[in-house]
Amino acid sequence: MNRVEISAGKLRGLLRLADDEGRFRMMAIDQRGSLKRMIKKATGKEATYEDLAQIKKLIVKVLSPYSSATLIDPGYGYPIAAKYLPPEVGLLLAVEETGYLASGAGERERKTRLLEGWSVGKVKRAGADGVKLLLYYRHDGSPEVVEHQQGIARKVGEECARHDIPYVLEIVAYPFREDEDKDSPVYAERKPKLVFDYVAEFAKPEYKVDILKVEFPADLKYCREYADGAFDGVKREPVYNLSEVEDFCREVTRLARVPWVILSAGVGIEEFLEEVEIASRCGASGFLCGRALWKYCVDYYPDLDAVEEWLSTGGAENFRKLYAASEAATPFWDTEAFGGFPNLALEKAGPEWYRNYPDFAGDE
Amino acid sequence: MNRVEISAGKLRGLLRLADDEGRFRMMAIDQRGSLKRMIKKATGKEATYEDLAQIKKLIVKVLSPYSSATLIDPGYGYPIAAKYLPPEVGLLLAVEETGYLASGAGERERKTRLLEGWSVGKVKRAGADGVKLLLYYRHDGSPEVVEHQQGIARKVGEECARHDIPYVLEIVAYPFREDEDKDSPVYAERKPKLVFDYVAEFAKPEYKVDILKVEFPADLKYCREYADGAFDGVKREPVYNLSEVEDFCREVTRLARVPWVILSAGVGIEEFLEEVEIASRCGASGFLCGRALWKYCVDYYPDLDAVEEWLSTGGAENFRKLYAASEAATPFWDTEAFGGFPNLALEKAGPEWYRNYPDFAGDE
Repeated sequence: MNRVEISAGKLRGLLRLADDEGRFRMMAIDQRGSLKRMIKKATGKEATYEDLAQIKKLIVKVLSPYSSATLIDPGYGYPIAAKYLPPEVGLLLAVEETGYLASGAGERERKTRLLEGWSVGKVKRAGADGVKLLLYYRHDGSPEVVEHQQGIARKVGEECARHDIPYVLEIVAYPFREDEDKDSPVYAERKPKLVFDYVAEFAKPEYKVDILKVEFPADLKYCREYADGAFDGVKREPVYNLSEVEDFCREVTRLARVPWVILSAGVGIEEFLEEVEIASRCGASGFLCGRALWKYCVDYYPDLDAVEEWLSTGGAENFRKLYAASEAATPFWDTEAFGGFPNLALEKAGPEWYRNYPDFAGDE
Repeated sequence: MNRVEISAGKLRGLLRLADDEGRFRMMAIDQRGSLKRMIKKATGKEATYEDLAQIKKLIVKVLSPYSSATLIDPGYGYPIAAKYLPPEVGLLLAVEETGYLASGAGERERKTRLLEGWSVGKVKRAGADGVKLLLYYRHDGSPEVVEHQQGIARKVGEECARHDIPYVLEIVAYPFREDEDKDSPVYAERKPKLVFDYVAEFAKPEYKVDILKVEFPADLKYCREYADGAFDGVKREPVYNLSEVEDFCREVTRLARVPWVILSAGVGIEEFLEEVEIASRCGASGFLCGRALWKYCVDYYPDLDAVEEWLSTGGAENFRKLYAASEAATPFWDTEAFGGFPNLALEKAGPEWYRNYPDFAGDE
């Protein structure tokens, strides 16, 4: 195996996002639109800035100490939560605008927009350890939407390289064809291929992605071993079995080359724990878990004491289970892109390293 | 107490350099000239790049996990040590050239030079949590040298503000008058005033310093309670007593306003432990300790196993003693500049924070 050279900012950032064993046990609290809807459901009222800021602050305070890194949004989350994020926990900041722009035929496709007035440079300057971009993606979408999404992913990748900060690209497919429904055998059957297609695309070196944050490449509710209603009591006709699902995960590992982690996409904690366990034994490097981890706390809002109490008990318990479920995850330095800790080396290490290492463009 | 607003990068950086209680328990391994001389003494040969890199790597590997942050130089240290610095430990990188330019009448004064080909921007881009500049300083030096030193300190302060990264300014006085000798009652007597003068100067807001790294404001060997040869067996005529020395430390706290830490300046560990204990109970926020912590390991060089063995035992023991000695240190957020953890807030926190937060100059 050859020595794998990596730039100083990327190496330090990856080490900061991972735990001491090189696994990513990350929490997401960058939800905006979906959290607003959850709050409205709990209180019956439109969620305000204060509502979101309060909940985010509590989740960061109570649960981020368990995470190797926490993903926050710069609008509602970070300004309030900054001082509560423990210094030993890595910090990921999101760069996209919440939601998407409905596009394509019948406006059933989704275009990602970057958050206006914010940038990769600001993420770096604020002292974060990584940049996260959420990209909705269908490889079989209309060329105009596909190109737009690829263009944004490429642009953020270039900015991250310029600022020497890790780039976490989150990709989510979505049903947009007439015959597709999120909870349907048709979509469940198509899901592995949808994930393979986007992983193959965004693993290309031109996107300069450091960590792929992707969906579990199957719908476990349609997997023979869980199709009897294991998670929600609803029986479904299975479209694959567990051994096939494991193969899907291994295929993601093969296509990704860089470390990949799975996202929780709003599924319940029991289902997500299964996904983490399967993905971890098939090559994933961990998880970046949002709602599955903390969503039940929102039910107690606006009783802040009850929210905090649930987080300290139920939330903490969820985190402990996630650690156990990801025990077999591949340390990031053992993925194909890095080839083992002994192979890690700073780019152009040696007496002239500091001279050769580039400054930000524009500085001398 | 009013809310103290702080920029995102400075806040995150300070939290990263401190431990969870807000105290700085930092290690310095950025020595270059002095380490070369120590290696030459141990081996009888001129030290090579490899020699320095090997020793620095081992010190970082074994001792940095005990530190809240580690200070490294970008020439010999960082390229080799990068991957061994635990992610939870803060990273400080030095920006000055080793040594000084002999200046002034009789060339007895010292001018600091910045390391050519290196910059504050590179420190930030590489993912460090703070910038350190070593400044030799005599307030009573020739105007040309004084101005030069103030100019460099101001320039680095501006660059740190521009890149939103904490600025650790290390200041060291030195004997340069005809009647001064480092180990002399005259110099010992002048030392408190030398330290007060530089602390008062560089605490001015125009230098934008976040942490002052300064000498202990007295020579304990000339303090009545230790003047019987407590540290080196040499009896000396005392010039002050312990209660006066405590007042000197309190005066540094009063003048500094920002957090200050003490440096070890090559004294032995026993003497440094006393200094840390006294400074900590009189307002210091911790230590940034170099040679006192690890210097004995160099005696074993080039036997790397023996070097590592000493670090794992003697070095680790020194660190534990330093923690105990600094138990009473003031958390950085409790210094006058911050006024308590509850008062800490991000500058312009709120829904528009991300818009108002500045990007690097030159970026949109």
